[in-house]
Amino acid sequence: MSPHSSFRSDWFSPAWFQKPRLLCGLMTGTSMDGVDAAVVELTSADGTPDGIHSIRLLANFTKPFPSGVVEQLAQLAANKPLGGGSSAPLSLAHTGLASVYADVREVCAAAGVAVSSLAAVGSHGQTVWHQPKAEQFGGQVGGDGQIGGYSVRSTLQIGSAPTLAQLLGVTTIGDFRAADVALGGQGAPLAPMFDYQFLRKPDENIIALNLGGIANITVIPAGAAEQDVIAFDTGPSNLLIDASTMKFFGKRYDSGGSIGQAGRVLTRFMDALKEEPYITQPPPKSTGRELFNMEFLNAALKFTYLDAQPAEDAVRTVTEFTAWSIAENIRLFAVGKRLNATFPTRIIASGGGIHNACLMDALRHELPAMTLDTTATQGIPPDAKEAMFFAYFAYRTLGGLHSNMPSVTGASKEAVLGAISLG
Amino acid sequence: MSPHSSFRSDWFSPAWFQKPRLLCGLMTGTSMDGVDAAVVELTSADGTPDGIHSIRLLANFTKPFPSGVVEQLAQLAANKPLGGGSSAPLSLAHTGLASVYADVREVCAAAGVAVSSLAAVGSHGQTVWHQPKAEQFGGQVGGDGQIGGYSVRSTLQIGSAPTLAQLLGVTTIGDFRAADVALGGQGAPLAPMFDYQFLRKPDENIIALNLGGIANITVIPAGAAEQDVIAFDTGPSNLLIDASTMKFFGKRYDSGGSIGQAGRVLTRFMDALKEEPYITQPPPKSTGRELFNMEFLNAALKFTYLDAQPAEDAVRTVTEFTAWSIAENIRLFAVGKRLNATFPTRIIASGGGIHNACLMDALRHELPAMTLDTTATQGIPPDAKEAMFFAYFAYRTLGGLHSNMPSVTGASKEAVLGAISLG
Repeated sequence: MSPHSSFRSDWFSPAWFQKPRLLCGLMTGTSMDGVDAAVVELTSADGTPDGIHSIRLLANFTKPFPSGVVEQLAQLAANKPLGGGSSAPLSLAHTGLASVYADVREVCAAAGVAVSSLAAVGSHGQTVWHQPKAEQFGGQVGGDGQIGGYSVRSTLQIGSAPTLAQLLGVTTIGDFRAADVALGGQGAPLAPMFDYQFLRKPDENIIALNLGGIANITVIPAGAAEQDVIAFDTGPSNLLIDASTMKFFGKRYDSGGSIGQAGRVLTRFMDALKEEPYITQPPPKSTGRELFNMEFLNAALKFTYLDAQPAEDAVRTVTEFTAWSIAENIRLFAVGKRLNATFPTRIIASGGGIHNACLMDALRHELPAMTLDTTATQGIPPDAKEAMFFAYFAYRTLGGLHSNMPSVTGASKEAVLGAISLG
Repeated sequence: MSPHSSFRSDWFSPAWFQKPRLLCGLMTGTSMDGVDAAVVELTSADGTPDGIHSIRLLANFTKPFPSGVVEQLAQLAANKPLGGGSSAPLSLAHTGLASVYADVREVCAAAGVAVSSLAAVGSHGQTVWHQPKAEQFGGQVGGDGQIGGYSVRSTLQIGSAPTLAQLLGVTTIGDFRAADVALGGQGAPLAPMFDYQFLRKPDENIIALNLGGIANITVIPAGAAEQDVIAFDTGPSNLLIDASTMKFFGKRYDSGGSIGQAGRVLTRFMDALKEEPYITQPPPKSTGRELFNMEFLNAALKFTYLDAQPAEDAVRTVTEFTAWSIAENIRLFAVGKRLNATFPTRIIASGGGIHNACLMDALRHELPAMTLDTTATQGIPPDAKEAMFFAYFAYRTLGGLHSNMPSVTGASKEAVLGAISLG
């Protein structure tokens, strides 16, 4: 490719938005089971940066990681010493993961998309550390502990973008979270910009609900401006349900929600779960596996569960609690505060939890005045959504637009995210 | 700054070369003693990418690292477990180092250079791992050892560029070596592109000689084209001299070369040193501390050094051996093969070794037909040279030009180096 290709001369200029652009997004989530890829066409309706953006999915697929890759990544993310050292295994995994991602070339070809037709790849990489709370760097250990040094908040995604750019021959953007963290933000969530751009309606309140391990919502009032958007973690989603099926059935998850559907709610257990203060704590807030895990489940079960009751009842109760925790956050922090009462409200769900019919039914029961469907109705297959994020953020970066929402992440200002390596 | 600033619309386009550009380069070398910074103005003589580039140093300085930073970096680079984990300390140092680099803001201000006037910062970062030999990633351990997986060659420089870009508010380019490694190159040396651009002459053969821990040369025949340039490590420079002053005098280096100047050459010791086969091995070749260290010195001394001889003689001999090893490489692999016999040859030295008068005199004695001076005569203070590299490579990257030389690194092709984070 010429060093002054037509692609590049359009970057960071309004001209970038004058044509439809083909991009690929790559995502490797905390489950570390493989790379999700999405090839999309992005368009600005009026050919300007401020025009309404639309996204069209051309292909998507998941390529499972070889088991050796999963093991090496899990060790890095668990922050355990690997191979006796610190830098070498991380360097190897950082570059090695780019080689794994480069296999997307074959899958693209199979889907009829030539890699050379891509304007860019947006690659999230694999998070191996995310610590938006300040730590000390470079201080000296004095008589009274650590002194001096720099107060640092850090996040680290591996999967070398300059390497991937050369392996694919396509400009690759990675490292999307560091800029927001440097500006005092949490570096997450990034979904709200995507939700705002592609799900907002002039005459309907939208709540984008992601049912991953943790449940999080993006609240987009009817006709909202960007700064009206809020987003936060409501509490557990699949994490606690999975813990209950593992404990009582030895199964990794409740497939289709059938176990939950076979049980009944245990009132005392439900009451114990509802005592968790996180649920009613006002946003901004975020949570994770460190709170909603097997210990949490066992603590709530301790005085409430009787062996005489069917195990399905426990799973049902956890599922209903999960739905309640989401609904309670919507009732407390969206209805009457954020949502425009003139218009109806639609919840648009994505994430693995959408396949749990017991959870989805419970949500509908909790929020009867709202419509609940999935992003599939908006042309966004729930399984492709996260990979689509990073294709879209790459599109914004090359157009010189920010992708973080300071109202959501807490950053001091907007930033054009990522580090661009030319292919 | 506007998302469509005039700077950005010139990137990757010939327009980038139409105006002088102000850039800052940051370098942290293997000595890990601090950050070297250089602020330069870059210009293309005829305003095109192919014009003769010139570089003018406006300010340079070294900011020593706080001792706590040195310790944490040394542990990472030594590949020792740090704080019991692998990802967290590396993430902290990666981001923390960007905070350290951001102090350049104050030093720039003191030098009368407003950070906001910089078009970009080029930051090498701190190398914590460099392994251009293939390792296995993601394979499974089978009965016969590691099977499957990916063959990976990796390099890792820390000092988060997206973080630095936000802290300074200036576009920052980092990660300059990964692309060349991904293309099968060694990711080093990068100096030859700089040497070629700023030291070449139509009517003089130029040998750029860097006297760091290791000595390396860039050979630029009179009137050479880019692909005529070769570069390689000739063997030890300061490493072995420093080892000898440490062993015999407890000093970290021979200040000014005065110890060496007080001694005489020990012939049997010299002969033992000259037996090292690396010196006469044909290029391409590279070496390091793993060969030229205290053990190497002790092995050569074993049967040759008598306590009755003055210790200064040992230092003198090592210094003369160092000069001989450089000269021998020039005689074997440049004279008569690369250099144009019609024109004279000038050696232009940089690196800490230029301050060792004993070494410089020995070089002049070894190569009487050549002129020896330092980069200072070319407007490039030897102490600022490496930081100037990364200002220049950032300039090339934003102009869409490659900075690696495949004839030198062994990469399969040229690449626009680095990852660009917008400030």
